[in-house]
Amino acid sequence: MSFRTHLESVVNQVDGALACSVMGFDGISVDTLQKEDAAELELNGAWVEYANLLGQLRQAAETLKTGEVQEVSVNSERVLTLMRLITPEYFLVLALRADGNYGKGRYVLRVIAPKIRAEL
Amino acid sequence: MSFRTHLESVVNQVDGALACSVMGFDGISVDTLQKEDAAELELNGAWVEYANLLGQLRQAAETLKTGEVQEVSVNSERVLTLMRLITPEYFLVLALRADGNYGKGRYVLRVIAPKIRAEL
Repeated sequence: MSFRTHLESVVNQVDGALACSVMGFDGISVDTLQKEDAAELELNGAWVEYANLLGQLRQAAETLKTGEVQEVSVNSERVLTLMRLITPEYFLVLALRADGNYGKGRYVLRVIAPKIRAEL
Repeated sequence: MSFRTHLESVVNQVDGALACSVMGFDGISVDTLQKEDAAELELNGAWVEYANLLGQLRQAAETLKTGEVQEVSVNSERVLTLMRLITPEYFLVLALRADGNYGKGRYVLRVIAPKIRAEL
């Protein structure tokens, strides 16, 4: 099953998008779309680490009764990374340039996550 | 040294703010301002977990050359949590209601972090 159309839709709608991926919590990408000008970024390595940490955060939030963690963002000097849960096994990752449209990125992930969930 | 004035400024400027805190990476709060209507949230427990995870993420990002992690956000169904590095030892945490002004929260933390850094 390909999620390419959804990933293209995300990357095309959000200014500054570098790459978008559907990933499992095991750190393995189901499908990834990476823009050519982002090729120098070792994003896969980062996302494997984030998958691990997102899993831990989810457990932390469950025990703390603030509701299930739906979205995690890790922003460094050059790259903004937005992650959104799709199911308990899979999540969406969007990497943006630091000057990218962060609010639009959050919105688009929120809208597209249920569409991908329906196809998983 | 008290950071109360800065914390009040953050909480008053951001719609939906529940609490704001200056914390060490050891999970100990230097100063915390929690609104009365947020008293039911066991926020301190959450922040200790987040401090630990933020430390791990910082290390992950350093090895991955996307630049130092400056900001991490963990958003659940009911609470948005924004964290911003002040120094390698301390960070700011802002908890918002899920319908709070997230963009304003990011902005205010970015502006206030250097002011608190100057006093540490």
